[in-house]
Amino acid sequence: MQTIFNIQTRGPGLSDFTGEVREFVRRAGVATGVLTLFVQHTSCSIVIQENADPDVRRDLQEFFRRLAPHTDDPSMSWVRHRTEGPDDMPAHIKAAVLPTSLSIPIIDGKLALGTWQGVYLFEHRDEPQSRRVVAHISG
Amino acid sequence: MQTIFNIQTRGPGLSDFTGEVREFVRRAGVATGVLTLFVQHTSCSIVIQENADPDVRRDLQEFFRRLAPHTDDPSMSWVRHRTEGPDDMPAHIKAAVLPTSLSIPIIDGKLALGTWQGVYLFEHRDEPQSRRVVAHISG
Amino acid sequence: MQTIFNIQTRGPGLSDFTGEVREFVRRAGVATGVLTLFVQHTSCSIVIQENADPDVRRDLQEFFRRLAPHTDDPSMSWVRHRTEGPDDMPAHIKAAVLPTSLSIPIIDGKLALGTWQGVYLFEHRDEPQSRRVVAHISG
Repeated sequence: MQTIFNIQTRGPGLSDFTGEVREFVRRAGVATGVLTLFVQHTSCSIVIQENADPDVRRDLQEFFRRLAPHTDDPSMSWVRHRTEGPDDMPAHIKAAVLPTSLSIPIIDGKLALGTWQGVYLFEHRDEPQSRRVVAHISG
Repeated sequence: MQTIFNIQTRGPGLSDFTGEVREFVRRAGVATGVLTLFVQHTSCSIVIQENADPDVRRDLQEFFRRLAPHTDDPSMSWVRHRTEGPDDMPAHIKAAVLPTSLSIPIIDGKLALGTWQGVYLFEHRDEPQSRRVVAHISG
Repeated sequence: MQTIFNIQTRGPGLSDFTGEVREFVRRAGVATGVLTLFVQHTSCSIVIQENADPDVRRDLQEFFRRLAPHTDDPSMSWVRHRTEGPDDMPAHIKAAVLPTSLSIPIIDGKLALGTWQGVYLFEHRDEPQSRRVVAHISG
């Protein structure tokens, strides 16, 4: 059972697609299994994070902006890859630090997320992008 | 084949549960497969790390304490999510950087860990917590 | 379907083994499934990164060298684990931050990598090493 989620981003930040993922699992009708999510890009990530206070997502985004600032920041003067804009190499760094793939068990036909867990596409580029996440269910 | 490991933590740091995981794989009796581990929380992580010198685990904990200090540290003045205590937002940051899920192959009925690899629950909150890790074996 | 990739590294940096992985998937002849990759070490990682500009890999390596410098750097004076050389504890830190396991879907018999994605062994130790990556395909 496979599908591809197409997610339109609107600049840096986290987009919730937990609902789409749950719906795919529901329709698959698999009682016991594992869902694999895989993002087909090297400048965005997929993360599981708190789904309650939106400030958590904003703080996360800010933490990573500080961890890997745009390359026009003096602290990033050592960066060589600059041809795709000041946000590109930091995006690759964040994509290395954050997950490219996630595996979530399915119990009794439902995604075994904890109460406070949501599934997010984390965009690292400045411009809006069209992102693809492959989903596969193993029975 | 699924189970849930309940792990009681005693403040920040790494708790070894390799033995429980190996025992689950042994009882499952699957010769060739993959074990998926998934932690149902957004303020702790599961990591594979060196099982020899305990200083490695302490240094790891200290590295992450410095990477994302408590929010009463002046360097964290930009953080907005403060309602759950000075250790909460740093816990979410560490949970984004470190794994939420792990996939470990099973070869000849045994977990294919390297000689020096152990499986750990990495607690990021200050207070003791009761943590749930879902385990699933695909044959 | 399982195999083990033996990868000889030549000091710190990223080694491309996408070709070997694709060849293993091709020979397996599985139309729909998931490939799991798992590295049996705690001082190197497996990452998916851009396969175009080699500067991206060099910048990544440099980012992590700065994030966790050798322990003879004054900023790392707090590190206790020093018996295996100044590059060992930073290698464990990088191995915690970067992936130990990856799950990549197989669609129509092919690895579902994006156009710009390659699979790399990221060596964190200074000396050349012989590294083992276990590969498993679930149908």
